[in-house]
Amino acid sequence: MDHKQVYKSYQEKISALRYAIWLIHWDFATEKPKGGFEFAIEQLATLNAEIYKIRNCEERIEAIEALYLSDIDDVFKRELYLEKKSIDQMKKIPQDEYLAYQKLISGADNVWAEAKEKKDFSMFKPTLDEIVSYNRKMIKYLESDELKGYDVLLDMYEEGMTVKDYDHFFNTLSEKLVPFVLEKAKIKQHHPKILTKGTFDVELQKKYNHSLPEYMNYDMNHGVIKESIHPFTSGYVSSDVRITTAYRPHLMESAIFSTIHEMGHAIYEQQINPDYQGTALGAGASMGIHESQSRLYENMLGRSRAFWEVNYPNLQKTFKKELKHVSLDEFYAYINRVECGFIRTEADELTYSLHVMVRYEIEKELFNGTLETKDLPKKWNELYKKYLGVKVKNDQEGILQDIHWAGGSFGYFPTYALGSAYAAQIYHAMKRDIPIEHALRNSQMKDINAWLKEKIHTFGSLKTPKELMIHATKEPFNPNYFINYLIEKYSKLIQTQ
Amino acid sequence: MDHKQVYKSYQEKISALRYAIWLIHWDFATEKPKGGFEFAIEQLATLNAEIYKIRNCEERIEAIEALYLSDIDDVFKRELYLEKKSIDQMKKIPQDEYLAYQKLISGADNVWAEAKEKKDFSMFKPTLDEIVSYNRKMIKYLESDELKGYDVLLDMYEEGMTVKDYDHFFNTLSEKLVPFVLEKAKIKQHHPKILTKGTFDVELQKKYNHSLPEYMNYDMNHGVIKESIHPFTSGYVSSDVRITTAYRPHLMESAIFSTIHEMGHAIYEQQINPDYQGTALGAGASMGIHESQSRLYENMLGRSRAFWEVNYPNLQKTFKKELKHVSLDEFYAYINRVECGFIRTEADELTYSLHVMVRYEIEKELFNGTLETKDLPKKWNELYKKYLGVKVKNDQEGILQDIHWAGGSFGYFPTYALGSAYAAQIYHAMKRDIPIEHALRNSQMKDINAWLKEKIHTFGSLKTPKELMIHATKEPFNPNYFINYLIEKYSKLIQTQ
Repeated sequence: MDHKQVYKSYQEKISALRYAIWLIHWDFATEKPKGGFEFAIEQLATLNAEIYKIRNCEERIEAIEALYLSDIDDVFKRELYLEKKSIDQMKKIPQDEYLAYQKLISGADNVWAEAKEKKDFSMFKPTLDEIVSYNRKMIKYLESDELKGYDVLLDMYEEGMTVKDYDHFFNTLSEKLVPFVLEKAKIKQHHPKILTKGTFDVELQKKYNHSLPEYMNYDMNHGVIKESIHPFTSGYVSSDVRITTAYRPHLMESAIFSTIHEMGHAIYEQQINPDYQGTALGAGASMGIHESQSRLYENMLGRSRAFWEVNYPNLQKTFKKELKHVSLDEFYAYINRVECGFIRTEADELTYSLHVMVRYEIEKELFNGTLETKDLPKKWNELYKKYLGVKVKNDQEGILQDIHWAGGSFGYFPTYALGSAYAAQIYHAMKRDIPIEHALRNSQMKDINAWLKEKIHTFGSLKTPKELMIHATKEPFNPNYFINYLIEKYSKLIQTQ
Repeated sequence: MDHKQVYKSYQEKISALRYAIWLIHWDFATEKPKGGFEFAIEQLATLNAEIYKIRNCEERIEAIEALYLSDIDDVFKRELYLEKKSIDQMKKIPQDEYLAYQKLISGADNVWAEAKEKKDFSMFKPTLDEIVSYNRKMIKYLESDELKGYDVLLDMYEEGMTVKDYDHFFNTLSEKLVPFVLEKAKIKQHHPKILTKGTFDVELQKKYNHSLPEYMNYDMNHGVIKESIHPFTSGYVSSDVRITTAYRPHLMESAIFSTIHEMGHAIYEQQINPDYQGTALGAGASMGIHESQSRLYENMLGRSRAFWEVNYPNLQKTFKKELKHVSLDEFYAYINRVECGFIRTEADELTYSLHVMVRYEIEKELFNGTLETKDLPKKWNELYKKYLGVKVKNDQEGILQDIHWAGGSFGYFPTYALGSAYAAQIYHAMKRDIPIEHALRNSQMKDINAWLKEKIHTFGSLKTPKELMIHATKEPFNPNYFINYLIEKYSKLIQTQ
């Protein structure tokens, strides 16, 4: 066999194993009976070990390295580059340390959950210390001329984004957005009591939510909608991208916007070039780009007035009694209400990125050595006061609220805010090309999907995030689009009444 | 590594792959969006090829053969025997013929489905010829001193059962049951019109069906109930055994009895010794024993008067309007009504085994060479006239009704009838030990489950069907229990009115 045949034959196995692992995870979150987990987790571990072995076997690595230097087209070159990158990283980390870390991580969730329940950071600290210390060591192993310190972690989630880039982004937020938010937060907003205190039948919510795929043009021939505790999107290939949602009787819009958000992720994956299925090119370009799509659908489109001009009548029809006396304008104001809160996942569009900024500053200091874990709660609470003007009451609603660090996901958080900012810039560029509001009012989401497909989705991981932003918007990432978008929208929405 | 370590390490991989393959099939039947199949089928083929390779690799076979001759306990010996048996069979069939046959089979379903739709056996005949001819060749490869001709196929589904055994079984049916059935079929039965012609809301059917696991003691901590076009049970290990059901608005009892039937299969698998998970011992003993459990729960228990004495009030409460004027006795007579029909899957308890007898006679002649495929429809129609007294109208409701032969499953059908007959003998033995009707009336299904666990379920595939029957009933299989059970039950139920 030549190198290409060797590579393809391994890829076939890796793809089939990844497909199986994807489905096992989907089943865990949506269907698996409790008593079935123990055995299934063992099987999953065996499949993961098998994929690790195959991915890192000598014959495959040799084939990739030889092919990469041979005369191949750019698409295949990019695929191999991504494979090579993860192999090269794997090579630099001693296998025993990597495996010990995997074991540490697999038990850390429970420690975190218990500490969160008891509102006691000190219970989580020893485990977090070990996780941070491994990540500091890993940085040393992986550092290069281009990437130093925290950059190494940032690049894992957002190829090419460094501390320098993020500093520029967050400094702009700090300078221009924080004062605006703190000022707007002082203004008291009023909303119909039925929306803030009412109860909305879950069966009716489901009925309404299941009408959304048609409007959104989410392709149910390649999709599934189910329920799970936390909404998520799950796709391994473009031909089968599934979402879940969660219904809350007292927060009717929660399921609607989480469904639109997840459909944003899902439409992205459904529109990736099908030729990339089963290869390293077949997924979204990065966490930030992925989040930009879900946020664009959820916020720029889903929370716009044009969207609800055409969709509100159906919602009113579904909740006849409850929404009879709620006007479109009242509903629109309600779904865009602003509150400086403590919990990132519940934050509104205006304040969301500031929650992320807190985590970015903390992670950056943690990995440049100016902050130790014992000082995390204090630092956290100071920054919440500074950026959001709120006083954190305890570790549960503060430093322990998110699971990410227990999974060793350092460098991930910043992409959440970056996604929103990408979204604003992409939205601005799209507006130049197509009449977005007209499309929304005429139920022509397919025009919007088509533009995004051409500019972003179809490429999968072929282009880097930076290349994609230039391709889609004709300029590099510029956080001012985001600031301007927010200030324009919320200046109108929140006025002294 | 010693032989045991080698064996265990391969088993670990095989078990994980089988788990993945099991879940992929479950997903296909319950969730997969249409557009996702093409890619998924390729991944499944890769996983199947991988498992084939691992199962038949030299190192593993050597380890099994050496271990089998070494000093090991009986449980492990039986596990290795089952592994060896399938390896030995595989060795005897030339690989190219086996692979060509797999390809033939994978396309045959569609040919059969089209022929069935067009009611034209001749469209299916050329494909069936190839399938039959492969099976005739395979018989030659696999014949031994103990197993000749059709026996080879029969043994694949029911270890140890030969033409001699089945002839005795079916001759008894032919002699004692057929005259009884033909006599009873002449008697006109009357049932409340709401049951035979009414409509039963599917949501209410679901609500009622979801109350059954508690009464049946089907463990939802290790189970799932979903919907699919054809009801089935799906389990790979005892810790996760799932069932599906299908609702028919005009046949309210259809979902109830298919749910009880599938729960019978599922309770069996849930009660297999958990130590056998992931090994050849971890599944049911045979097709016939499996079917005996589903039939016992569905018919002997589920269609008994004692069962409905305690369950009918709840059903009446669910369908207040529809069942208000239907008495328990009327309902009991309705769910046990008898009709000589054409379709096996819709047959009642009394006539079911005669449908299977038709197929057994045909398969037997096909493989001892006294029947050719071109004569199948004629033979089929003659036998239906003879055993069930009905005149088959066309190939769709006749020779083409079942998919099994398109999948090459010759030797499988007889186990369906055998299962019902096993069930009657097991039921008779259980009655000696515990007061079954008392348990049903007092919602103590757990006592029945416990007896079946001790006598049958816990063993998985440790014992052969013949050993199990002796262990559970203290005597070898005897078809007279089945005949007596049916004649006693239906003599009372169907009388000249």
